[in-house]
Amino acid sequence: MTSIHFGLIGTGYMGKAHAIALHAAPRVFDLSATPVCELLAELDETLATRKARELGFARATGDWRTLVADPRVDVVDICAPNFLHKEMALAAIAQGKHVYLEKPMALNDADAVEMVAAAERAGVKTLVGFNYARNPASQLAREIIASGEIGEVLHFRGRHNEDYLADPAKPHDWHTFRETAGAGALGDLGSHILNMAEYLTGQSITQVCGQLQTVITERPLADGSGMRPVENDDHAQALLRFESGLIGNIETSRIASGRKLGLAYTVTGTKGAITFDQERMSELKLYQQEGPPGRRGFRTLLIGPQHPDYADFCPAPGHGLGYNDQKIIEIRDLIEGLAGRQPLAPDFRQARRINALIDAIERSHHDGGWIALDGA
Amino acid sequence: MTSIHFGLIGTGYMGKAHAIALHAAPRVFDLSATPVCELLAELDETLATRKARELGFARATGDWRTLVADPRVDVVDICAPNFLHKEMALAAIAQGKHVYLEKPMALNDADAVEMVAAAERAGVKTLVGFNYARNPASQLAREIIASGEIGEVLHFRGRHNEDYLADPAKPHDWHTFRETAGAGALGDLGSHILNMAEYLTGQSITQVCGQLQTVITERPLADGSGMRPVENDDHAQALLRFESGLIGNIETSRIASGRKLGLAYTVTGTKGAITFDQERMSELKLYQQEGPPGRRGFRTLLIGPQHPDYADFCPAPGHGLGYNDQKIIEIRDLIEGLAGRQPLAPDFRQARRINALIDAIERSHHDGGWIALDGA
Amino acid sequence: MTSIHFGLIGTGYMGKAHAIALHAAPRVFDLSATPVCELLAELDETLATRKARELGFARATGDWRTLVADPRVDVVDICAPNFLHKEMALAAIAQGKHVYLEKPMALNDADAVEMVAAAERAGVKTLVGFNYARNPASQLAREIIASGEIGEVLHFRGRHNEDYLADPAKPHDWHTFRETAGAGALGDLGSHILNMAEYLTGQSITQVCGQLQTVITERPLADGSGMRPVENDDHAQALLRFESGLIGNIETSRIASGRKLGLAYTVTGTKGAITFDQERMSELKLYQQEGPPGRRGFRTLLIGPQHPDYADFCPAPGHGLGYNDQKIIEIRDLIEGLAGRQPLAPDFRQARRINALIDAIERSHHDGGWIALDGA
Amino acid sequence: MTSIHFGLIGTGYMGKAHAIALHAAPRVFDLSATPVCELLAELDETLATRKARELGFARATGDWRTLVADPRVDVVDICAPNFLHKEMALAAIAQGKHVYLEKPMALNDADAVEMVAAAERAGVKTLVGFNYARNPASQLAREIIASGEIGEVLHFRGRHNEDYLADPAKPHDWHTFRETAGAGALGDLGSHILNMAEYLTGQSITQVCGQLQTVITERPLADGSGMRPVENDDHAQALLRFESGLIGNIETSRIASGRKLGLAYTVTGTKGAITFDQERMSELKLYQQEGPPGRRGFRTLLIGPQHPDYADFCPAPGHGLGYNDQKIIEIRDLIEGLAGRQPLAPDFRQARRINALIDAIERSHHDGGWIALDGA
Repeated sequence: MTSIHFGLIGTGYMGKAHAIALHAAPRVFDLSATPVCELLAELDETLATRKARELGFARATGDWRTLVADPRVDVVDICAPNFLHKEMALAAIAQGKHVYLEKPMALNDADAVEMVAAAERAGVKTLVGFNYARNPASQLAREIIASGEIGEVLHFRGRHNEDYLADPAKPHDWHTFRETAGAGALGDLGSHILNMAEYLTGQSITQVCGQLQTVITERPLADGSGMRPVENDDHAQALLRFESGLIGNIETSRIASGRKLGLAYTVTGTKGAITFDQERMSELKLYQQEGPPGRRGFRTLLIGPQHPDYADFCPAPGHGLGYNDQKIIEIRDLIEGLAGRQPLAPDFRQARRINALIDAIERSHHDGGWIALDGA
Repeated sequence: MTSIHFGLIGTGYMGKAHAIALHAAPRVFDLSATPVCELLAELDETLATRKARELGFARATGDWRTLVADPRVDVVDICAPNFLHKEMALAAIAQGKHVYLEKPMALNDADAVEMVAAAERAGVKTLVGFNYARNPASQLAREIIASGEIGEVLHFRGRHNEDYLADPAKPHDWHTFRETAGAGALGDLGSHILNMAEYLTGQSITQVCGQLQTVITERPLADGSGMRPVENDDHAQALLRFESGLIGNIETSRIASGRKLGLAYTVTGTKGAITFDQERMSELKLYQQEGPPGRRGFRTLLIGPQHPDYADFCPAPGHGLGYNDQKIIEIRDLIEGLAGRQPLAPDFRQARRINALIDAIERSHHDGGWIALDGA
Repeated sequence: MTSIHFGLIGTGYMGKAHAIALHAAPRVFDLSATPVCELLAELDETLATRKARELGFARATGDWRTLVADPRVDVVDICAPNFLHKEMALAAIAQGKHVYLEKPMALNDADAVEMVAAAERAGVKTLVGFNYARNPASQLAREIIASGEIGEVLHFRGRHNEDYLADPAKPHDWHTFRETAGAGALGDLGSHILNMAEYLTGQSITQVCGQLQTVITERPLADGSGMRPVENDDHAQALLRFESGLIGNIETSRIASGRKLGLAYTVTGTKGAITFDQERMSELKLYQQEGPPGRRGFRTLLIGPQHPDYADFCPAPGHGLGYNDQKIIEIRDLIEGLAGRQPLAPDFRQARRINALIDAIERSHHDGGWIALDGA
Repeated sequence: MTSIHFGLIGTGYMGKAHAIALHAAPRVFDLSATPVCELLAELDETLATRKARELGFARATGDWRTLVADPRVDVVDICAPNFLHKEMALAAIAQGKHVYLEKPMALNDADAVEMVAAAERAGVKTLVGFNYARNPASQLAREIIASGEIGEVLHFRGRHNEDYLADPAKPHDWHTFRETAGAGALGDLGSHILNMAEYLTGQSITQVCGQLQTVITERPLADGSGMRPVENDDHAQALLRFESGLIGNIETSRIASGRKLGLAYTVTGTKGAITFDQERMSELKLYQQEGPPGRRGFRTLLIGPQHPDYADFCPAPGHGLGYNDQKIIEIRDLIEGLAGRQPLAPDFRQARRINALIDAIERSHHDGGWIALDGA
C-alpha cells in the first residue's frame, strides 16, 4: 500500500484536530493509502519542533515556505488563519502539491476564483474542510432527502449560531478585521450552513437577499492599546432561492448567547421533514406522512451501524460520535479521493461557490435587495 | 357586580373555545364583571338552538344581524371566517356594541384601517384575539425581555408552521381563496408570529423583505366538482428590521409536514437568550451570561405560580396549562379591559399593524425588495 | 335531559379544580346529564358564601354535615384533606349519596376496606379522582399497550417525584403527620404512579418489596412554636411483580429537587416501548420494532383529535391540554358513569387496591422483604 | 520520555476501540509516557497479522500465551470475552505484566477475589475499563456532587438499558451462557451502572435487594442446530442502600426495545439534582435551589473546555465528544497511572466490588430479600 505524506501548516484549534485525525483514520478505516505525518510548520523552529513531537510529525520547520517546497510532502494541509489561505495554497500549487484547506476557502470570491484557476491549471487535487457535512447524521439527512423519503424538498431553514464573541470585553483577534477574516460570522460560521444547504438539498442557491449587522461596533485591542472598530458582521441572515424553486432562509451569529455549536437545520418536503441540531450531533429527527395519523410524529434516529460511516467507529448503535470523528471521516474522504477511489468534494471549484454566496449576501445587504448568482 | 352580556357569532373551532372560556373564566379568576352568555348566532335557527344548548347560551338566532342589534348584547364576539370580520364588526360598531374579534382582524390593511376608524369614531371598545400572547410562558418571555434579564435585544427569530394543508388531496375551504381569507399561511399563522415579534420585543417592525410561495398550486373543490387554483401562499418568510435597529426573521407555513403548532421563537439579547416552542407551551428556556462559565446553559423553566396568571389555574408549579386556558386568560383581559381596569390590547388600532405588516410582506414579495412601514 | 346536583366539600387546590371542571365540562362534552353546582361547604359560613360566589355554586354552608344531608344534593364531592375522607364518605353514603372522592381514598387499607363495604351495602356509586389517568396521552398509552402495538408488556418503570417539601425550612402541614395524611410521598404521589401502573398494564400488582425514608426528620410547626418530627416518608421506592409475571419498579418523592410534576413512566414490551413525562403532558414517545432498522427511533406523538377525548377540546392537533382539562374529562367520566353509560373506574373497590399496595410497601419496608398481596 | 509497550488480546468491538485510542491519546494529551502498540494476539496467525496491520501494531501472534510472555510487552490489554478474563489476567500477572482489562472483571466474585490477590501479590498495576466513567459529562457530575453544589446526596436512580437482544430470533452468543458470561444484562450492562453509582456518589453500596428475569427463555443456536435455553438474566433491577444511608435503585436490560445506550442517572441532593443520559453524552442537566423561584429550572450544560478533559480535544465548547474519546481518556488515565502520576482507578481491588454487587443481587433474587455486603 502506498503512503501519502502530509505537511501540516498551523497547529491551533484545527491543526491539532487534523493531527489527531491523521493518526486515528488508518485505525478506524481500511484506507487505500497510508497517511504519513511528514512535516509540520509553525511560526518558528522551537514551536514547530515542540508541536511536531506533540502531534506526532516526523520533521518540523519554522517556515511554511520550506514545507511547501519539501520534496517528501505530497499534500499541503493548511490550518492557518483565513488571510493566509490564498498565499499558502498558491505556493503549494506552484510546487505541484495537492492542497487540503480549512474553510472558508478565501477572504472573498475573487481570491477563491484565482485559487480555483491555479489549482486546475496545475492539475493538483484539492479538498476544503467543511467538516460538519462529514457527520454521519448529516450524511444520513442527505441520503434521506436524495432517496425521496420526505418527498420533494420545499423548504430549507438553517442557522449556525455561536456566542464566542458575545462578550463585548473580548478583545479583537484576526476574526474581527476585514483584512484577516473577510466576512465575520457570515464567513466563519455562515460558510458552514451555506455549504450544508447545498450539500443536503443537492441544489445550488441561485438568489439571495441578505442583511448583516455589526452589533458590537468596537472592541479592545488584545495588547491593551485601546479600542478599535470591528470591521465585519456579528450576525447575518438571508432569504434564499434554490435552482429548483425551493425557498429557504439562513442565519448566522457569533454573538448568539447560549449557542455553542448552533448549526441546525430543518428540511421540509412534500412527504415529511427532517430536523437536526449539531449540539446533539448523533441524532436526526425524521417525520414521515405514513401510517395512521394518530401514530405519526418526529422520530429520533440515533446514529448507528446502518448509517453512513458509523460502523467503522463502533459496531453498536447509539454510542455517539464526536467532533473529532468528523475530521477522521474527512481524512478518509481525502485519502480515498487522492487514491482515485471517489471524487474529492468539495474541491476548490465547489467550495468557491460558498465564497460567491457570501459575497452576494454582503452585496445584497449593501444594495438592499435580491442578488442572482451565476450558475458557476 | 355588573354583568357583561356576550353575543357569539360562529360556533366552529374558535367559537367553542370562546364558549368554554366564558364559562370557566369567572371560576378561574376574580373578575370585575361577570360574563353572561346571552345570545348565539349560527347559520340557521336549528343549528343556533342546538349550539346554544351545547355551549350554554341563553338564547339563539339564525341571523347574526339580529344578534348585533339585540339590546341585551353588550359585546359582539366574532368567531366567523375572516371574510366576514369586517362586515360583522362594522355592523356591531354601528349598533354601539363593543367588539371581540378573532385574528387576523381583516382581509387586508385597507379594511383594517376602515374598521379602526369606525370603532374609534363610535367610541366602542375592541379586542383582537391573538391568544398565544396570553400564554403565561410568552407573558413571562415578555417580562424577562422587558426587565433586561437578557440585556438589550439583538435578534428575533420566529416561526409559525403547521401542516394542516400539507396533503395535496385536501380540498379547498375558505382558507385557500383570496376573497375569503386574504393571505394564506401568512394571514392565518404568520399573523400570530408577527404579533408575537412586536409583543415580545415591545417594538414596532419598521421594514420587511418577504418571499411567498404557493407550493400546491391547485386543489380539489370540496364538492368534488374538479380542481381549482389555490389563491394564496402556502408558506412565506421575511427578514425584519425593528424600530431600535434590531433585526430578525420569521417564517410561516401551512404545509410544514410534522408541525402541529409550530409557533416558536428565539430572542437573543446582549446578556442572554430565551427560546420557546408552543408545542411545549408550558416551558420556556432561558440562558443568562451569569455565574461560572462551566455552569451556564439553557434553563428549562416550567410555568408555575411565580409566573403571570398561572396561580389562578393551579397553586402547584409545572402542572401545565392548555390551549383553552389561553382563551380563559383572554376573556379575563377582555372583561377587565371593558371594566376599565386595564388597557385592551391589542385593540383594533394595534391589531391593524399586523394587517399592515402582512400587506407589506406581500408587496415586498411582488416588488422584490425592502418595504418600509409607516409608524402607525 | 336530567340534572345531577353536586355538593362540593373543600375549595382549596382540588376544590377549585373541580369547580372549574364542573362549569366547563358541559361546554366541552355532549353529556348525558347536566352537572349543577348546588351546594358548597367550607369551614364557616362566611368563607363558604364567598367561595360559592367565586366558584359558581348556588348555595353555601359552613357545615359539611348539612351538605351531606341536603336533599337536593345527588353527589357529594369530597376535596377535603385525606384524614377527613373516611368520615365524610361514610356520612354521605349513610345519606344515600353518590361519592366523588379525591385520592388517596383513605389513610390506610383498613379504612378503605370499610368504605368499600359501606358503599356497596348502600348501593351508592363512587369514583376516586386519579386525574392523571384521564390525560389523553396516558389514555393513548393504555390503548397502545392494550392493542398489542408494543407486544407483550415486559417491564414497567414509574416515578412520581415533586419537590414541594424539599426545603427543610418549610413548616409542617397535614401532609407530614401520620394521623392526617397516612403515608407521606408514597400516599400523596406514590398513589398516582401505583394507580398508573395497574391502569396502563391492565394488570394487578401481586408482590412488592419496598423501602421508605424520612430525610428531613423534623420541621418547624406552622405557628412558630418549635420543631416537631416528620411522621411519614419523604421518599420511597419499590420493586414490583404483576400478575402476569412482568416486573417493574416505582419511586416517589416530595423532596426531589427540580421536579414539579415528575410523574413519568416507561413501559417496555416485546415489540416496542412507550415513555411519558407528565411535565410534557401532551406528548407520548413510542418506539416500535418495525420498518428498516436505520429508520427506527422513539417517535414523539403530539396529542390530537385521533387520540382519546382530545377532539372535544380542540379540532386541531398538538394544541395542548392542561392540568385542569384532566378534571374536565374526569367529570365527564363521572357524569356518564352516574348516567349508566359507562362503568365508574376506579370506584371504591378498585381504588382500595392502591391503599392495599401502599400498606404493603410500608410493611415490606418494616419487615425487610417481599410482600404478596391478596387478589382482591 | 519513556515508552510503555502494549500487548493487545482481542480485536473485536473493544479491541478496535483500544487500538484507536492508543494511537490518538498521545496526540490529544501531553502524556508522561508514550504508548507503543507492540504486539497483537488473535485466534490465529493470519487474523492476527491482518489485524496488526489494520490496527497499527508492530508484531502479531496467534497465541495469547506468547503475547503474555513476550519480554517487550509491559502491559497486557485484555479485550477478549468475559470468560477468558481470569485465565489471561492470571497468566499476565504471573509474567509480572501490568494488566488493563475490560469490564466486568470476572464471571463472579470468587474469581475476582482470586485475581485481586494475584495482582497484589505480584505487585503489578491494574486498571479495569469502565469507560463511561471517563466521559467528561460524568466526571463533571462527580465534581458537582463532590463540591456540594447539589447539597448532600439523597437519592440515586440509574439504569443501563439496551436492546441488543430484544429480538427473540437473535441466536445465542457468549453473552447468553452462564459459563462464558456469568450474569446476563446485570453483568454486561448492570456492571456499568453499579460502577457509576459508586463513582458518582463516592460511596459504597452496602445493601441490595434485587430481582432478575430471563424473558426470552430460549434462543436458536448460532450454527442452526436448534434451540437452547438462555442461562442468564435478560433484565434485572435492584433497590440499593449506600454507606451514608442514601437510598437508590438501578435497573438494567438487554431487551429494552428502543434503548441503544440507555445508561442514565438522576442524582438528587438536598440543594439540587443532576440528570444525565449517555445517549446525549455531551450534556448534563443541573438543577439548583438558587436564585428567584421563578427562574429555577434544569440547566442543560454542554460540555466544554471548563469541564474535565474536554479542552484537550477541542478548545471550543459544545462541539461534542464521542464514544471512542472516552477510551482515549482511559488510556491517558492508564498511562499516567503507570507513570505514577495519579492513582489507577478502578484497579482490580476496586473493580472487584462490582462483581461482589452483581453476586449479591443474584443471591438476593434467589433468597428473596435484602443482602448486606461486606465493607471490602
